[in-house]
Amino acid sequence: MGKVYIVGAGPGDVELLTLKAVRIIREADVILYDRLVSEDILQLARPDCEIIYVGKEEGKHTPQDSINRMLVELSKVYRRVVRLKGGDPFVFGRGAEEALYLAQNGVEFEVVPGVSSVTGVPTYVGIPLTMRGVSSSFGVVTGHEGEGCYGVRWELSRYVDTLVVVMGVGKRQEIGRKLLELGRDAEEPVAFVERGCTSKQRVVVTSLGRLASDPPPVEPPALLVVGKVVELYKKLKDTQQHPEDALRLG
Amino acid sequence: MGKVYIVGAGPGDVELLTLKAVRIIREADVILYDRLVSEDILQLARPDCEIIYVGKEEGKHTPQDSINRMLVELSKVYRRVVRLKGGDPFVFGRGAEEALYLAQNGVEFEVVPGVSSVTGVPTYVGIPLTMRGVSSSFGVVTGHEGEGCYGVRWELSRYVDTLVVVMGVGKRQEIGRKLLELGRDAEEPVAFVERGCTSKQRVVVTSLGRLASDPPPVEPPALLVVGKVVELYKKLKDTQQHPEDALRLG
Repeated sequence: MGKVYIVGAGPGDVELLTLKAVRIIREADVILYDRLVSEDILQLARPDCEIIYVGKEEGKHTPQDSINRMLVELSKVYRRVVRLKGGDPFVFGRGAEEALYLAQNGVEFEVVPGVSSVTGVPTYVGIPLTMRGVSSSFGVVTGHEGEGCYGVRWELSRYVDTLVVVMGVGKRQEIGRKLLELGRDAEEPVAFVERGCTSKQRVVVTSLGRLASDPPPVEPPALLVVGKVVELYKKLKDTQQHPEDALRLG
Repeated sequence: MGKVYIVGAGPGDVELLTLKAVRIIREADVILYDRLVSEDILQLARPDCEIIYVGKEEGKHTPQDSINRMLVELSKVYRRVVRLKGGDPFVFGRGAEEALYLAQNGVEFEVVPGVSSVTGVPTYVGIPLTMRGVSSSFGVVTGHEGEGCYGVRWELSRYVDTLVVVMGVGKRQEIGRKLLELGRDAEEPVAFVERGCTSKQRVVVTSLGRLASDPPPVEPPALLVVGKVVELYKKLKDTQQHPEDALRLG
């Protein structure tokens, strides 16, 4: 029996992979990867490594049950099976379901944390989720109300300084209205980070009021950050450096 | 003028450093580091790199203002100044204050995300902050009510599935009582992860009820996770592998 490694590939920039992820990818016999894992990262694998796409976007959908079963079957054939996921595998990544299934089927496995997009994308662009005197707490929710996700209790926005919404692009106007209704300030800044930590990264800053009345065009995948911490982004952005070549592995 | 890199060193395990952090540490002329950055990580620096401890624990306290000024002064002397912090520099790390000070003083800088302890430590031990059907949201607060931190609005615990408390060891009984009072279930499991992602890692699992009535002995630094997701830890822990040698850089 082989071993399955459930590995976080980080938020996009190949240089944000951990040393452990790189080591495990290089040793992999087979890799099952998701939509948000970049080509640059897959190129770290051995030439003879089998690489299987199991992403979940429209048109090419691999059901979670099939992925679970594939991991078990592959572990019977290969010594090192890698399940590679964007961000951290245990933060909005279905990694926990896969780990549980492997455990229930007696397959040896290891979970390797990655830089979560939830924290890594804001930091990368210069938005701190916490900052002394500005924010000492944050909440993270998914704006996606699809299969398996239940209703967000938006009241949490009353009790956290910073709110992070993943998969919230489609409902951004509704989210803006809801947060205003719950008493957050219309002047409060909000930022969308589209394709964070990739060469196509784009930051869109607006206010909660404008989000509710006239939401800016944003394409998924994008992370939404609501809170005064977004003001720091505006102050930092002219000074902070993001060399283009940081997106290439040296 | 040199450049300052504000770099996240991840939660402890040297293999959880990012490729970018390793590259920048290896090129550093001077490194200012915090208490939670391990010796293994500092050993990646060049032999002639100047290494300065600016941690904040009792007895050897470097005020934040001094650190800010040191960064500016060092940038006048050295080409590559590295400010190395445990976890992610913009998540409970004072990194945002340092970035702002550098920006205000016209010093070029770059922020490098790291694996935040908030997400990385739970994942490392097998506690998913989210899991389909169990948790689709989480909140993160600091239990430390010292200088610069204001009151936690614990009501947030009513609206998130998983609650993460950093620096909450000293007030753990009080936190347990507060959460019960606010209506969280006494049977709900809670986990403390002491020195997560290091060779001294220890996980202590109890229930919210017992935390409030008879809190287990725990030493800081430890992360507290409250929520049903902790049950997965119990199911996984006999299967999941954490090779001891993962704490050594290959």
